Amino acid sequence: MTFRATLLTLYPEMFPGHLAFSLSGKAMERGDWSLDTIQIRDFAEDKHRTVDDTPAGGGAGMVLKADILARAIDSVAADTRPRLLMSPRGKPLSQSRVRELADGEGVVIVCGRFEGVDQRVIDGRNLEEVSIGDYILSGGEPAALTVLDSIIRLLPGVMGNAHSGTNESFEHGLLEHPHYTRPQVFEGQEIPTVLTSGNHAAIEKWRLEQALKLTQQRRPDLLADD
Amino acid sequence: MTFRATLLTLYPEMFPGHLAFSLSGKAMERGDWSLDTIQIRDFAEDKHRTVDDTPAGGGAGMVLKADILARAIDSVAADTRPRLLMSPRGKPLSQSRVRELADGEGVVIVCGRFEGVDQRVIDGRNLEEVSIGDYILSGGEPAALTVLDSIIRLLPGVMGNAHSGTNESFEHGLLEHPHYTRPQVFEGQEIPTVLTSGNHAAIEKWRLEQALKLTQQRRPDLLADD
Repeated sequence: MTFRATLLTLYPEMFPGHLAFSLSGKAMERGDWSLDTIQIRDFAEDKHRTVDDTPAGGGAGMVLKADILARAIDSVAADTRPRLLMSPRGKPLSQSRVRELADGEGVVIVCGRFEGVDQRVIDGRNLEEVSIGDYILSGGEPAALTVLDSIIRLLPGVMGNAHSGTNESFEHGLLEHPHYTRPQVFEGQEIPTVLTSGNHAAIEKWRLEQALKLTQQRRPDLLADD
Repeated sequence: MTFRATLLTLYPEMFPGHLAFSLSGKAMERGDWSLDTIQIRDFAEDKHRTVDDTPAGGGAGMVLKADILARAIDSVAADTRPRLLMSPRGKPLSQSRVRELADGEGVVIVCGRFEGVDQRVIDGRNLEEVSIGDYILSGGEPAALTVLDSIIRLLPGVMGNAHSGTNESFEHGLLEHPHYTRPQVFEGQEIPTVLTSGNHAAIEKWRLEQALKLTQQRRPDLLADD
């Protein structure tokens, strides 16, 4: 099955961007996923192809018009794919949501630009507002590419057998333990002796302790959520 | 002044990616920022140019070797730019950290791949681990492109006068209020009357109330942090 991503954007040239390379690029070549873009501007009706207008009530920036974006969304053949709107106002993206999306048939992603999108099209087209983090981007495109990257690596066959994708940060609610590899000594620092002991139970215990300690230090919020 | 970004990566072809277009692309052409990439693999010393090895203590995946990455980092001329390592174990990126970075002379960003990076080079080269969100990516590259996008839009002159960049989600600790623009009626839904009242005090009050309500509904964690 091909995971289908449809992107609604004012900058279709930004896609597939970095997804053309490495794991995701090879997966695209194999047909594990596909991408198509829809230029929102094609649904403007004036001769200047205007897609935005000044915000009702005044203020800085411009707002993406509801009627134009609605027509662009409605041009996508009806299917059951979730419709995301990348927005800093959205629900923070989580690894569990990424897994759900990867288990589905695809996504339709609306990339906002300007100051924002008219609220009435968000409501009227039932867009799921998703945020990739608490910072502001130039538009939804970098966020959409980030979400797609996180999804694609979980599609069947993409990571191969070498990596299950299930023993990582967030998959168990903890940050991942530190990693080490050869050389045994690097600039005077040795690999922790437990890791070269061959005692698998002790190694697992050490890794869990390290993961817990790191999570407590850096992300107590992850522990508090349980 | 040119903001200088140096990327250490196994996939230099992923850059500048989407940053070649729109705001960031124009800013790059003007010389507001520059990007150079360093191929980590160039610092391998065996004939296969191996950069990774199996994790000490066993387990899935491969670990980026400390000695090779250290040499790659040391090849960057010494300067005062922060050195970031994109990692899901890192401190979550915030808009205030983005502003600090944009106020500086640039960044050096190490893009991890595989299961992780040998802890001794993180410690030994004083890398600042930064996470763009609680989900897993194929590597640090999509994260680095996202961080750069958030920085570049704040560089002097990039957004122009039309947008100050200071009245947005997170800039005041709240999610942004809903936006509306023409047409007055979209599919039976009118723009809230207060916004077309011309009463600027009432509009500001409504927007603040909406922002508070939305933040309480979606992100009570933002309010609790104060």
